[in-house]
Amino acid sequence: MPDVVAVDLGGTNIRAARVDAAGKVLGRDKISTLAEEGMGAVVKRMADLVNRVRGPETVAIGIGTPGTPDPDTGVMKSRAVNIPDSQGFPLCPELKKITGLTAGADNDGNLAALGEYWLGAARGEHIVLLFTLGTGIGGACVIDGLVYHGHSNLGTEFGHVTIDLNGRKCPCGCVGCLEQYASAAAVGRDAREALAKGGKDAQASLLWKLCSGDPQKADAKMVCDAARDGDAFASRLLDTGCDYLAAGVGSLMNAFNPSCVILGGGMALAGDVVLGRVRKRLDAGRAYAPIARDAKLVAATLGDDAGLIGAARFAFQKAGVRV
Amino acid sequence: MPDVVAVDLGGTNIRAARVDAAGKVLGRDKISTLAEEGMGAVVKRMADLVNRVRGPETVAIGIGTPGTPDPDTGVMKSRAVNIPDSQGFPLCPELKKITGLTAGADNDGNLAALGEYWLGAARGEHIVLLFTLGTGIGGACVIDGLVYHGHSNLGTEFGHVTIDLNGRKCPCGCVGCLEQYASAAAVGRDAREALAKGGKDAQASLLWKLCSGDPQKADAKMVCDAARDGDAFASRLLDTGCDYLAAGVGSLMNAFNPSCVILGGGMALAGDVVLGRVRKRLDAGRAYAPIARDAKLVAATLGDDAGLIGAARFAFQKAGVRV
Repeated sequence: MPDVVAVDLGGTNIRAARVDAAGKVLGRDKISTLAEEGMGAVVKRMADLVNRVRGPETVAIGIGTPGTPDPDTGVMKSRAVNIPDSQGFPLCPELKKITGLTAGADNDGNLAALGEYWLGAARGEHIVLLFTLGTGIGGACVIDGLVYHGHSNLGTEFGHVTIDLNGRKCPCGCVGCLEQYASAAAVGRDAREALAKGGKDAQASLLWKLCSGDPQKADAKMVCDAARDGDAFASRLLDTGCDYLAAGVGSLMNAFNPSCVILGGGMALAGDVVLGRVRKRLDAGRAYAPIARDAKLVAATLGDDAGLIGAARFAFQKAGVRV
Repeated sequence: MPDVVAVDLGGTNIRAARVDAAGKVLGRDKISTLAEEGMGAVVKRMADLVNRVRGPETVAIGIGTPGTPDPDTGVMKSRAVNIPDSQGFPLCPELKKITGLTAGADNDGNLAALGEYWLGAARGEHIVLLFTLGTGIGGACVIDGLVYHGHSNLGTEFGHVTIDLNGRKCPCGCVGCLEQYASAAAVGRDAREALAKGGKDAQASLLWKLCSGDPQKADAKMVCDAARDGDAFASRLLDTGCDYLAAGVGSLMNAFNPSCVILGGGMALAGDVVLGRVRKRLDAGRAYAPIARDAKLVAATLGDDAGLIGAARFAFQKAGVRV
């Protein structure tokens, strides 16, 4: 039975796993990225890692990286993490030269969505949208088991759909972008502002306790934790954040008519305290009712492995092996 | 050389054209819809029309209708125009029974986008988004020459993306929908309100003259006409309307990363007075700059024939004939 090696290129570590056609992880290993050594050195060590992890039946390599590798050629279109000379680097061709294996690379967020489609929260779903809630909001779309890349591989910037055309400025150059309202960073920032304004409500809240009375220490996780415990102050903050999120998710539901929307990233770990609020707002008019009805809303289930699992699936595609 | 019969089912007329694989119209005809006679009678007369228009080489029928016919089965999922018993009606199966020809049906807006892709403003483009600016705003998306339908054939409701989450209410049940701001109807309504408020500016404007001093007579066409003539009052109104439109178009550019966006419908006939304003706003931060750079913005060119041409293309697809 053929297998593949999936690689996750991160800022700190490079992780690799050997995965079979059923999605079973047969072995894994990792090394430090050492980005400062430059892309040539990183790829050589990545190849060593692959050669350690591969088996006699390994047919291809799939790599998830930040930025926008070209999924057809495996050349880095933009800079990857903090590796100085990575832009324009022929990642997959070089890896093939050393290992002899066909290699494909895609954005790690795209591959996380593909992983959730294959073995996670959106197994076998027709059309999947993924919102990854972290410092920003990442987006990805999988249609019939294939990542949607857009025309120039810049697609699915779901964090940068407009929810308020006269709203907050975004470093991307646009105004009112979803991620300025509903990312974990934005929810944390709104909480710090609300706490800093003070007032009896704030100081009597569980959230105030969780941040030890220092508003500047509050973050999205504390908001979710306090809301889960029934704290009214935190619940109101989370209601607002989830309504923002529902405005963006609903907008894209109306545009894509997906069968399944996944919430991933740190904030989605909070589970139903976020998911339930977003679902409620979607069903109360943040999406067109028939479209909302036809779309599941689920939390990601593969955690840190989503990108690796997706990279494995992508490697099987590259190798022409049906899974 | 094989040809097809394309049919456009409208509220007033049913139009049909025989079209060859190069997109050349070989003949056309039309009859009254007479919706009140019910769907059975309408289909019988549609079949007569097809039989009159078809030739010895005709291999299939393609039909554009309002609403959501199922593009796989040709059954009407929702009611078509004002034909009372059309919901659930097996349009294509019935038509095949009478004519002996394979038939496929799709939403007329979807087929207009397909027509523009085949022979119009977006010829051969990789990923096309169409915004049809009329009473509402219709949306359609063509990827690699195929209409994108979404999971349950409710997809691409581009008039119902949110541009202001605390904004105007929409009959669809959502808030801040694009079509409440940037449809021809919305631009006309905003103009009537601005004129009714009066003031020196309004009464000195060309727009005031065009509506004969009766604000209630103003519409989007007059706003475009006056703006084209350099009228400052109308130009400001159109600037605002086009900025609204750019907020929605830019949002979906960021989500879809299209190669081409088409503006169609009555307001797009105004040409560069609208197109230029929207382009300017997209390039000034209503879309992420690299994505805006990679997307053309064009006006529809096939006019009333777009849907017929798209229906012909769809018929060739159904017949398995490459064009």
